[in-house]
Amino acid sequence: MNIRNVKILGVGKYLPKEVVLGEAINKKLGKPLGWTENTIGVRKRHFVVDETASYMGATAAREAVEDANIELEDIDCIVCASGSMEQPIPCTAALIQKELGLEKSGIPSFDINSTCLSFVVALDTISYLVDCGRYKNVLIVSSEVSSAALNWKDEKSAALFGDGGAAIVLGKTPKGESSKIIYANMKTYSEGSEWSQVYGGGTKFAPNLENVREETMKHFLFSMDGQKIFKMAKKLLPKFVKEMMEESNKSLDTIEMVIPHQASKSAMGLMRKNLKVPKEKWMDIVSNHGNMIAASIPIALYEGIKQEKIQRGNHVLLLGTSAGLSIGGVIFEY
Amino acid sequence: MNIRNVKILGVGKYLPKEVVLGEAINKKLGKPLGWTENTIGVRKRHFVVDETASYMGATAAREAVEDANIELEDIDCIVCASGSMEQPIPCTAALIQKELGLEKSGIPSFDINSTCLSFVVALDTISYLVDCGRYKNVLIVSSEVSSAALNWKDEKSAALFGDGGAAIVLGKTPKGESSKIIYANMKTYSEGSEWSQVYGGGTKFAPNLENVREETMKHFLFSMDGQKIFKMAKKLLPKFVKEMMEESNKSLDTIEMVIPHQASKSAMGLMRKNLKVPKEKWMDIVSNHGNMIAASIPIALYEGIKQEKIQRGNHVLLLGTSAGLSIGGVIFEY
Repeated sequence: MNIRNVKILGVGKYLPKEVVLGEAINKKLGKPLGWTENTIGVRKRHFVVDETASYMGATAAREAVEDANIELEDIDCIVCASGSMEQPIPCTAALIQKELGLEKSGIPSFDINSTCLSFVVALDTISYLVDCGRYKNVLIVSSEVSSAALNWKDEKSAALFGDGGAAIVLGKTPKGESSKIIYANMKTYSEGSEWSQVYGGGTKFAPNLENVREETMKHFLFSMDGQKIFKMAKKLLPKFVKEMMEESNKSLDTIEMVIPHQASKSAMGLMRKNLKVPKEKWMDIVSNHGNMIAASIPIALYEGIKQEKIQRGNHVLLLGTSAGLSIGGVIFEY
Repeated sequence: MNIRNVKILGVGKYLPKEVVLGEAINKKLGKPLGWTENTIGVRKRHFVVDETASYMGATAAREAVEDANIELEDIDCIVCASGSMEQPIPCTAALIQKELGLEKSGIPSFDINSTCLSFVVALDTISYLVDCGRYKNVLIVSSEVSSAALNWKDEKSAALFGDGGAAIVLGKTPKGESSKIIYANMKTYSEGSEWSQVYGGGTKFAPNLENVREETMKHFLFSMDGQKIFKMAKKLLPKFVKEMMEESNKSLDTIEMVIPHQASKSAMGLMRKNLKVPKEKWMDIVSNHGNMIAASIPIALYEGIKQEKIQRGNHVLLLGTSAGLSIGGVIFEY
């Protein structure tokens, strides 16, 4: 067990200007009144108008820095932890640095990517470097423009996603305080690598004049086999959580708040029942945000803190699945 | 100074089947005999035929695992450290896990990306987790299909790049041995974020039926303003290296081998003179590999080890620049 004495010093979020209600999605998909709200469980989500991922990330970062009561100049590392990239080169963290007006600062900036779990893995990984003093104040930023890659012919996934950005400042726990990461784990089972993917846009299927046609367009869009993922998650998650609890000497009873990845309303509901977590200990923001890929967990964390559902000293479990497929979790004392 | 007691237990590489000589490049670009060889300084590079980034990475990984004298099952974390992705979702590390036949293993797999410096940053970052026992045997894999995004109208950059994959196994230094990471640093100056980029293919400029036309095609291809990058690197690198040496209590004289990013023949030559590093202490593989993005440094490291230019106990400096722009370096005892 590797305890890391780190503290979330501040949190920030940004939701795009355009609010897209279920009604608009129903209309776009030719669905009857209430379909998106009732079948998908998402009443509201935000889509970018002219906002970029780096703009959303930088705006959330500014709030997190203010919330941490430090200055932008106190940041000594920027980690972008998003499942989608703004452009293939350079990494999004560099674009966020620029958007923050820190383009001459030299602050090291890089990306950590494990799709929907990017925030969880970045928090876990970078906490070791913060604990031992390599970095003092790290910005971890998740910012997702899901709307850029939705396949509107795949109704169930198109109606599920939303855009948004979140950021935290992670620092060393001050003397006399008890904030810490208690335990973290991640497992990747790539037998499910095709169940949630964007196939095109990388080196394997690079867009060019010959290949981007009606019939190949789907390769550039998000596709998800929700049933297969859910089946696998259902099989693996309870064991994964049990293992986390055993190895960290915790039990779900001693966790004050579970923040699951906001995968979908139905999957989250079943998972909560499966894990026997009471409703009041389960952050659920999917109905008014949609699934925001890696930004889902930190925005739910933000909401938990700002709504005072999470207090200093509380034990929090971040828990999710991601394309890969991966399962990941972090237990920390806020 | 954070010393990390980690050891490179094994190394592996993979070069694609197709060897592309300068002659073929000259012909493709309509250049006279010897142009690519003399102007660009790249006599030979490899381009993929049917190999994917994950295939190359997995093949290099198998060699590294064998070289480390362990089994694939002993690996407990896979980090893909590439500047290019195979597909936007899932992360390339998951695809490498699958290619290794480890799809049911659960081995945590994620990507760390800072373009050409991805390997350096991944080695630096993950070493903290290895040193404190979070992971025992980490595969760090860099695998790049540069050829997928070359802009053949930009002759100088098209003639420079090559494809390839490399891997290392990083583990805790056994008792009684002295391998360690002595010092590492990275700086990102995003004022240069547009000087080396692929603009399209991300969420900002997602390919769709309307936008991929002749005039926008260039956004999906690599572009580089080598002059601007070189000017900035020339200004910043000597100071960066001086700082590294001071903070690590080292001098360039006590470093047995410098492994620079294989950016380009001319840039490397000028840099070497600028830093006053003698030729025999400077790994240069660009003329028969080209610039292989993040795979350049680990393949040069591989060559240094296999050609016995780097021995156990030697001090090695990995040093490079990347799109971002970033500068990064690691000093380690092999």
